[in-house]
Amino acid sequence: MPATFRVGLLGHGTVGGAFAALLEQRADAIVPITGLKPELSGVLTRSRGDFEAILAGSDLIVELIGGLEPARDYVLRAMRAGRHVVSANKLLLSQHGEELWACAREHGVQLRFEAAVAGVVPVVRVLQESLAAAHVERVHGIVNGTTNYILTEMARGGLSYADALGQAQALGYAEADPTDDVTGRDAAAKMAILARLAFDTPVHLEQVRYEGIEQITADDIAYAQELGLSLKLIGTAERVDGGLSVRVHPAFLYGGHPLASVNGPFNAVTVESDVITEITMSGPGAGGPQTASAVLGDVISAMIPPATTPEATQELAIVNDVASAFYLHMEVADRPGVLAQVAELLGLQGASIKSVVQRGLGDNARLVMVLHPLLESRFYAAMRLIGRLDFMRAAPRAIRVIEEEFT
Amino acid sequence: MPATFRVGLLGHGTVGGAFAALLEQRADAIVPITGLKPELSGVLTRSRGDFEAILAGSDLIVELIGGLEPARDYVLRAMRAGRHVVSANKLLLSQHGEELWACAREHGVQLRFEAAVAGVVPVVRVLQESLAAAHVERVHGIVNGTTNYILTEMARGGLSYADALGQAQALGYAEADPTDDVTGRDAAAKMAILARLAFDTPVHLEQVRYEGIEQITADDIAYAQELGLSLKLIGTAERVDGGLSVRVHPAFLYGGHPLASVNGPFNAVTVESDVITEITMSGPGAGGPQTASAVLGDVISAMIPPATTPEATQELAIVNDVASAFYLHMEVADRPGVLAQVAELLGLQGASIKSVVQRGLGDNARLVMVLHPLLESRFYAAMRLIGRLDFMRAAPRAIRVIEEEFT
Repeated sequence: MPATFRVGLLGHGTVGGAFAALLEQRADAIVPITGLKPELSGVLTRSRGDFEAILAGSDLIVELIGGLEPARDYVLRAMRAGRHVVSANKLLLSQHGEELWACAREHGVQLRFEAAVAGVVPVVRVLQESLAAAHVERVHGIVNGTTNYILTEMARGGLSYADALGQAQALGYAEADPTDDVTGRDAAAKMAILARLAFDTPVHLEQVRYEGIEQITADDIAYAQELGLSLKLIGTAERVDGGLSVRVHPAFLYGGHPLASVNGPFNAVTVESDVITEITMSGPGAGGPQTASAVLGDVISAMIPPATTPEATQELAIVNDVASAFYLHMEVADRPGVLAQVAELLGLQGASIKSVVQRGLGDNARLVMVLHPLLESRFYAAMRLIGRLDFMRAAPRAIRVIEEEFT
Repeated sequence: MPATFRVGLLGHGTVGGAFAALLEQRADAIVPITGLKPELSGVLTRSRGDFEAILAGSDLIVELIGGLEPARDYVLRAMRAGRHVVSANKLLLSQHGEELWACAREHGVQLRFEAAVAGVVPVVRVLQESLAAAHVERVHGIVNGTTNYILTEMARGGLSYADALGQAQALGYAEADPTDDVTGRDAAAKMAILARLAFDTPVHLEQVRYEGIEQITADDIAYAQELGLSLKLIGTAERVDGGLSVRVHPAFLYGGHPLASVNGPFNAVTVESDVITEITMSGPGAGGPQTASAVLGDVISAMIPPATTPEATQELAIVNDVASAFYLHMEVADRPGVLAQVAELLGLQGASIKSVVQRGLGDNARLVMVLHPLLESRFYAAMRLIGRLDFMRAAPRAIRVIEEEFT
């Protein structure tokens, strides 16, 4: 029986509930990594639970109640009692970060907060660890999923701002009161935290200039598309004239920018420095299970000494024949029945044709197909037979196609 | 005076040289993070240095000599002597990983290897730490920069494979002997390591099926572009029927796939799981300074207990007036001299016009411009004056443009 690691949970809303479920679901998988089995030792909600009792019975506190007070008070008391804390509270950290981090240092505990910025995108860890000593020049981020969803829908469907906001609310991507999101204040809090980590300079939320997306029209987006530009709500923290600029505003990006293709409720952050050029990370910016996953990563890191590679706990068999979609390229004589014969051989192996391009080239033709996924062994069997057809002018060529459509 | 942390370096090629320079350059910045000042305690090259002497005088060993032996022997001896090891050796880890990781566990030392996979892209850390307990479904990676450069050039310029390879060699993106890259073997070694981390199952390089890009023609790429597909050398590790498939082959991606827009010598990895949906990380996949930066991140992590947020060491001033490029949208009366007057007011503030679209709308016209960067205070001064011109039919609207063109 592994020893138990007791996790006290403050808050049981969307993220808190998802975290409690995920912790239970993954508890057994955490044992080989940490040597300890985590379990929930108590939950504090507005109506239930006693903070002091939970603190006394916990090795670590997860703070998911949000807002400034009593979150600040609980986090400080937990650290003073020698407990590690994991928090997703961007407002708290962007306004009282220095006080909290000083308290963590003083008491020799960890205060981890990956979930406070960009959901499951591991930008806090990467800035604090991988890039701990990097001389960062600039951080660009799409750190608010609500506004990115709205702008994406305005660009795709020509929706007005009001209609896109209504759609975001109907789908749960925006709150009933979307003020903090659409004014840029939520993104500003996150950029204050990222700027602190990237530039080792205290940055308070109130020092971040921010503009929102309420004034954007579908027309602006349409015109800019003609110029090859797409619109995002961009947070920027960068060195300027020996100082630091931290700001959030709508901005157009050219198509080649790594953030230009980040659509829907996704978040992404690009970190630039001379030495590394740039690193871009993207993923879902919100959502209960996703945010809970970021919290759980922090909890595990607080449970163990720096990552070692644990013993392999799985012995999954290595599979060699998998299903793939294929692109199939054939040079054929241009005569009747060619497509039918190729299709018949494919059909005998269970291959189904997704799309075809045929083009005449004098007496010959080029036949290019994309097939739906089938076992590779069956595809290659069909291709061998196709290669022997008398109207083939060259050996057929095949390249796999990855079918997923990301939105 | 902070205490010294002694780093022994094995190998002084492109990455080794860059690491030695970076360590010296960043040594002072590392002190507030770790409380220790790192210094190079010895360098082993083919012609200089003695391994035993370097080991005796080092707290940590960085292995950048590559290949299987004597790298394996040195890494094992260092760990048996209680030293942490940082390595960038993908061939070694993909063939002797289990032996090395077991040795690290046995001796209670860290073996870190971020730079072995995807250069500066922090995928090893994210899989080992952020996603330590995640139930990963699939990892997709572009983990070889040479082949991604070649395929990008074939797609952009219609170059043949041979010409694109020659260009990659001329620019230093491909070795004189490119076999390991173009056959997919280099990518296979990296996928073996990622599969081990993502699925907790031992995976040996020889268990990875791989195909390269030598057979790809410009023609394949051109046809596929018509179908909305772009070609990449994709490494895949995924659960299949209760087992694990690990493979590398060229594959077409649809435009919306997060890896479809990864071009040139960049690397990227997408990790998918039910809970997190997906995380994508991208950045330069090779290069001496970039790889050295990944090595340095590992060295710092080995120097300190799990990340805390160190005291803020900088007090950068917060800058409020920065230079930005702007999109400017105006509804104007359609009459002569309008563009000239607008341009004059812009010119007086030093604004320079990059592009213009003008379109008639009956008696009115819509004038949309993109301006080169200028101080925001100057731009807004011009905009206020423009707003007062008698031919303006509505208040002008402005949105910032981020100018960088990524390639």
